[in-house]
Amino acid sequence: MSEFFTLKFENKNLVFIDQTKLPLVEGYITTDNYERIAEAIEGLEIRGAPAIGVAAAYALALSLKNESSDLDEKFNKAYERLAKTRPTAVNLFWALDSVKSVYQSHKSSSSVFFLLLNKAMQIHQDDINKCDAIANNGVELFSDDSTILTHCNTGKLATGGEGTAFNVIKKGYELGKVKFVYADETRPLLQGSRLTAFELSKANIPFQLLVDSAAASLFKQRKIDAVIVGADRIAANGDTANKIGTLNLALLCSHFNVPFYIAAPVSTIDRSILSGDEIEIEMRNKKELSYINGVQITDSNFDAYTPAFDVTPNELIAAIITDKKVNKPPYSF
Amino acid sequence: MSEFFTLKFENKNLVFIDQTKLPLVEGYITTDNYERIAEAIEGLEIRGAPAIGVAAAYALALSLKNESSDLDEKFNKAYERLAKTRPTAVNLFWALDSVKSVYQSHKSSSSVFFLLLNKAMQIHQDDINKCDAIANNGVELFSDDSTILTHCNTGKLATGGEGTAFNVIKKGYELGKVKFVYADETRPLLQGSRLTAFELSKANIPFQLLVDSAAASLFKQRKIDAVIVGADRIAANGDTANKIGTLNLALLCSHFNVPFYIAAPVSTIDRSILSGDEIEIEMRNKKELSYINGVQITDSNFDAYTPAFDVTPNELIAAIITDKKVNKPPYSF
Repeated sequence: MSEFFTLKFENKNLVFIDQTKLPLVEGYITTDNYERIAEAIEGLEIRGAPAIGVAAAYALALSLKNESSDLDEKFNKAYERLAKTRPTAVNLFWALDSVKSVYQSHKSSSSVFFLLLNKAMQIHQDDINKCDAIANNGVELFSDDSTILTHCNTGKLATGGEGTAFNVIKKGYELGKVKFVYADETRPLLQGSRLTAFELSKANIPFQLLVDSAAASLFKQRKIDAVIVGADRIAANGDTANKIGTLNLALLCSHFNVPFYIAAPVSTIDRSILSGDEIEIEMRNKKELSYINGVQITDSNFDAYTPAFDVTPNELIAAIITDKKVNKPPYSF
Repeated sequence: MSEFFTLKFENKNLVFIDQTKLPLVEGYITTDNYERIAEAIEGLEIRGAPAIGVAAAYALALSLKNESSDLDEKFNKAYERLAKTRPTAVNLFWALDSVKSVYQSHKSSSSVFFLLLNKAMQIHQDDINKCDAIANNGVELFSDDSTILTHCNTGKLATGGEGTAFNVIKKGYELGKVKFVYADETRPLLQGSRLTAFELSKANIPFQLLVDSAAASLFKQRKIDAVIVGADRIAANGDTANKIGTLNLALLCSHFNVPFYIAAPVSTIDRSILSGDEIEIEMRNKKELSYINGVQITDSNFDAYTPAFDVTPNELIAAIITDKKVNKPPYSF
């Protein structure tokens, strides 16, 4: 299959893949309208915290394309609109504020649009570099011909670059260290079966999907050499919040003596949080259990336990791989 | 909500609930046509090994309703047709053969239809009795006000009676021993969110659904007092094959020191199998991962690991509850 990309800036437009249609349709949208990009973030056409940050930076820069009057009003309106798209995404605010600070220093310059664009491109390039650094650091942990299990989507579709945990796997495959990947489908939103499977297939990496609860039977057959996943937030002591289902895998690794790795940029580490106990867990809409791809599968009035994340305690984590280095326990960030 | 039933025989017809439409539509089908019942078993309108056995027994009896000539030919044709519906269901063959042996002894009797019907009713009543005995035996294991987690569907919808593991939970709720139930949605076929949730709701038992991978986070919060599930096949040493995802729960129980129980009729114990290593695991169609309720969610060409069952080793099982008694380790059947 051919190469794909998540987002790129060309001919003064942002071009991005519509992730809601993947993997059944590989369609790209081209726009220079920041409102369209805001809608794409809200509607999950663009998802993954780093990818959202990069897209929002481009969108904010684009808000001044072809504009020459009332810049303050137009810029602030675009900033507010974009900030509302995914209010819990830390990367989103960081990216918007980075562009805003360039605007504030250069708003009277005739080339302000290009300066903003330059900042957005720099944010994008930084993300690409971080993804590569994570892969280079992490791949050293794998033995030759390993079979790796992963959860959720942490690849190119989630970042501005080649991914976090997924990029370690991909680099490992290129170097002969990974020979096979098992990908959890990752209920409720199926990022594994829709997105990770698409990325594995595009990278020609041999893989099988599985329902999340089938991982235990692979471990029992000693088919898994390592598990690697991403992170949403890492506490100062190494406790890690990540997609629901992660803790289950860490416990299986502990029981079967298989290494469990986290891969994430340094920016995911939140030193203001001392331990995982302080991480608040977002509860999702219970309709994520009663509807799948818009089709109702059960009574939406049934109550449900719907944590978006779980927290894996540091003692279950063999290493936390960042763009800076491989951190081993005891963790102290 | 009102009472429901899985199947009953009245006015010389079998009346059964269409489980494929649950819980969104509670619809019943009335028929005296064995072919229609065969189609219901094939199409999963009737499912659950004990329920299939009972339905097939009634269907085989119905094949001679209003017939007075060429009985052998008609009976054998119906037998062959029904035996083809779910070729791996042990209860199906056992039930068909029980009815057949009555036919062979009484085929020249003018009341052969009623004798067959009587046998089918007896098979049905036996199943009801077994379910009650399992509940009475198992409920002794629960402490007061317990919160129980279960997997898949083991209730009235799966049996001719009130269920196996589900019936222990239900009896426990009636006696004040169970105060809350967590029900795994049970991918890929979602028997938990479609069927167990429906049964819990009908029984007015407080519950929440969860994606299968979220169980670990409940255990970590010490919210689960016991896990109880059914069984597809139990080896002579107590190793138990059950719906994929069961082993994962048994391992969580072991890690968090929570009792893990199996509830099943004695007929589920297969003494010819010495250990779980000898149990062959059926692989399901990978479309169960790429389609949900007929809607495609990912590329059906993606390869998948699709075991229908996993095997829980005996050392992880705190008790095996049957209609005869509560068996404790070490198991020797």
